[in-house]
Amino acid sequence: MVAPLKVGIAGLGTVGAEVVRLIETQARVLAGRSGRGIRVVAVTARSKAKKRSIDLRGVDWAKDPIALATHPEVDCFVELMGGAGDPALSAVEAALNAGKSVVTANKALLAKHGIKLAKSAEKHGGALNFEAAVGAAIPVIKTLREGLAATGISRVYGILNGTCNYILTRMEQEGLSFAECLKDAQRLGYAEADPSFDVDGHDTAQKLAILASLAFGTKVAQSAVYVEGISSIAPEDLRAAADLGYRVKLLGVAVRTAKGIEQRVHPTMVPKSSSIAQVMGVTNAVTIDGEGIPPITLVGPGAGGAATASAVVADIADVARGIRANPFGRPVAHLRDTTKAPMERHEGGYYIRLLARDLPGTAAAIATRLAEQKISIESIVQRHPNGGAVPANPGKAAPVPVILITYATHEDAVRRALAAVQHDKVISGRPQVIRIEKN
Amino acid sequence: MVAPLKVGIAGLGTVGAEVVRLIETQARVLAGRSGRGIRVVAVTARSKAKKRSIDLRGVDWAKDPIALATHPEVDCFVELMGGAGDPALSAVEAALNAGKSVVTANKALLAKHGIKLAKSAEKHGGALNFEAAVGAAIPVIKTLREGLAATGISRVYGILNGTCNYILTRMEQEGLSFAECLKDAQRLGYAEADPSFDVDGHDTAQKLAILASLAFGTKVAQSAVYVEGISSIAPEDLRAAADLGYRVKLLGVAVRTAKGIEQRVHPTMVPKSSSIAQVMGVTNAVTIDGEGIPPITLVGPGAGGAATASAVVADIADVARGIRANPFGRPVAHLRDTTKAPMERHEGGYYIRLLARDLPGTAAAIATRLAEQKISIESIVQRHPNGGAVPANPGKAAPVPVILITYATHEDAVRRALAAVQHDKVISGRPQVIRIEKN
Repeated sequence: MVAPLKVGIAGLGTVGAEVVRLIETQARVLAGRSGRGIRVVAVTARSKAKKRSIDLRGVDWAKDPIALATHPEVDCFVELMGGAGDPALSAVEAALNAGKSVVTANKALLAKHGIKLAKSAEKHGGALNFEAAVGAAIPVIKTLREGLAATGISRVYGILNGTCNYILTRMEQEGLSFAECLKDAQRLGYAEADPSFDVDGHDTAQKLAILASLAFGTKVAQSAVYVEGISSIAPEDLRAAADLGYRVKLLGVAVRTAKGIEQRVHPTMVPKSSSIAQVMGVTNAVTIDGEGIPPITLVGPGAGGAATASAVVADIADVARGIRANPFGRPVAHLRDTTKAPMERHEGGYYIRLLARDLPGTAAAIATRLAEQKISIESIVQRHPNGGAVPANPGKAAPVPVILITYATHEDAVRRALAAVQHDKVISGRPQVIRIEKN
Repeated sequence: MVAPLKVGIAGLGTVGAEVVRLIETQARVLAGRSGRGIRVVAVTARSKAKKRSIDLRGVDWAKDPIALATHPEVDCFVELMGGAGDPALSAVEAALNAGKSVVTANKALLAKHGIKLAKSAEKHGGALNFEAAVGAAIPVIKTLREGLAATGISRVYGILNGTCNYILTRMEQEGLSFAECLKDAQRLGYAEADPSFDVDGHDTAQKLAILASLAFGTKVAQSAVYVEGISSIAPEDLRAAADLGYRVKLLGVAVRTAKGIEQRVHPTMVPKSSSIAQVMGVTNAVTIDGEGIPPITLVGPGAGGAATASAVVADIADVARGIRANPFGRPVAHLRDTTKAPMERHEGGYYIRLLARDLPGTAAAIATRLAEQKISIESIVQRHPNGGAVPANPGKAAPVPVILITYATHEDAVRRALAAVQHDKVISGRPQVIRIEKN
């Protein structure tokens, strides 16, 4: 019998405590699956005195994360502290440089320092596993790294943030505003007191950067991701989307185009019939388009202590079994540099909602501006708030919402056309623009 | 640089040819991911003379599958011939006994001889990988074997046969009969000339037996699966299901109950809102309920040359990387014997469709028989074909469909109640019974 794998855990919050519990309660199954035992030998956390539900008798308490990472007894360092900087960064580096394996759930750290850490893992022979960093227990890292090892990927996209999907689901189902739904999400613990990291798309961007690297062999780089959040989405957008056969989701999309790899996070109209459109509430989902094969969609909980701990312990079990995959699929030397794809060159369909002044010739003016930019219109809906009757006093009447769906075009054409429309003073306020992603 | 992994492929149909092509075209990526090259050194197939689109220059042609399996140059034997018996069985056994690794897409072989083969792999140190055997490129084997290594599974269920799901989807969407849809499926190549293996549920049963073993640590045994096909499903069942908020799918379900592991394949009513209900056409999907975590659903193509080959080559890449998982997750010595769960003890909700004779007291008679068996009724719908008007000639009128949904009860109670109802002569024909699976 091989000696057990000795694990050190930094961070004993909900996830850390659940990891300790799983390793103990599932000991026999884990040993059977891994061919060797797994044992927690040392831990550290901010407060040693804090009351915890787990039994830590016989487990060494390291004085700080670096001490734990370089602990002579520890084979596998589990980082559950979070944050892109120290102490997580130096502790993970210290462990890898000491030739130990690392398991982490820290998307921020990977999105910022992933390549440096992968290099260190490669050089010193340790594993660097992070299934829990994207989509918790949804096995998307393993699927991209191992399951689709032989398949060229043309696109990977998904709902990677439960807070945003919860808010959009409530807005759609109950016709509520963004602000109302955010408040509810905060009350229920689905959103932070400062929600910007989630609702402005940064959490999704970090996760997308990791997936893009695994899918396309590019260097992970959060800075290469275009990001737009969901705070501008109005209930009328969701209603219009529904009427047109779409739903609005905050998607992270990484796609191979003729101009390079595009990585972008933004509210997106997806066909109601697509797998991704069915994903409601806090659930996450990722769709992978492999070359020559129909899409594969993985759906499940994107957060939560038990789901995250499940992925962390599976990663530890892989270390125990001796699996050493390249952290980002390919050797670091094979990874290509990533540049931010300029969104003005993005190609796709667009949803445009305008508030047109109810004057003769407005529709013609808008249509002309789009035609000048060679934008073809798939559908146009103009909804008179008074049911279509001729206004008693044209020019003074309330503005009329006009909703346009374009065929595939370039984003800069859309921007130029809308600037011209605004310049013509035939609309009130800013146009709403939502990109369409076809399945 | 480690020496390349040398592969021998038995069977050069669509999948085999695509495997050869992928190994060649993806050589650099595969080598990067695996840490070593992968090279096809020998092949065999029924006809050497057959024209193929792949380049086999420099590749040895073995005289038969056993010769290939024991070929001195071959490290990894890839079995793509199919069939539960010889030549697949003896060739796979010969390869494993020679200490080689085996990759196969052969569900029939695994469902029948999986344990014997796993023992041999364990004894001689080779891998036995079979991701492609269930759900083609959907990474369900890897997810159960590795991704959820630490999580107790309470249930795994799914749509594992594209032919049946295609037929049920068309029946539902177009109101067609089973026979009409089957004919179309045959014309389109989605169903075989003899469709019974698919539509009677045996294909699903073989796949389910494999999943159940991985999920629950039981010995894989197709004989332990209760099987019922879809040929008795009528368009009116699909309409009634839709009215009640359900869809009908052919599911394979393996579930831990107080009485043991239940493995069953049958038409099933699933809530329309569930992930599995959204899966249409030939697409497959598997949902895994892990203890303490929300369900994980994997959706994708369940068949097709490219999707199957993708999974086969990923399995080969795992062999190249040196991954040796227990074929069924746990060591064979840990796997428990499997017994067929008696369906009469199955507990769940039921959909019952009866054709009641339109006589006074019929509804009361039916309700009484159910009450005698302590079956509670969640809903009852009686649809008079003439819109509910009192028939001019009671007793001579056409029978009236009555649809019942029960709360959770025992199957033997349902069977006894319906036997009594039939004995009372208040219904025409056989009652239709469909089990309900809640998410």
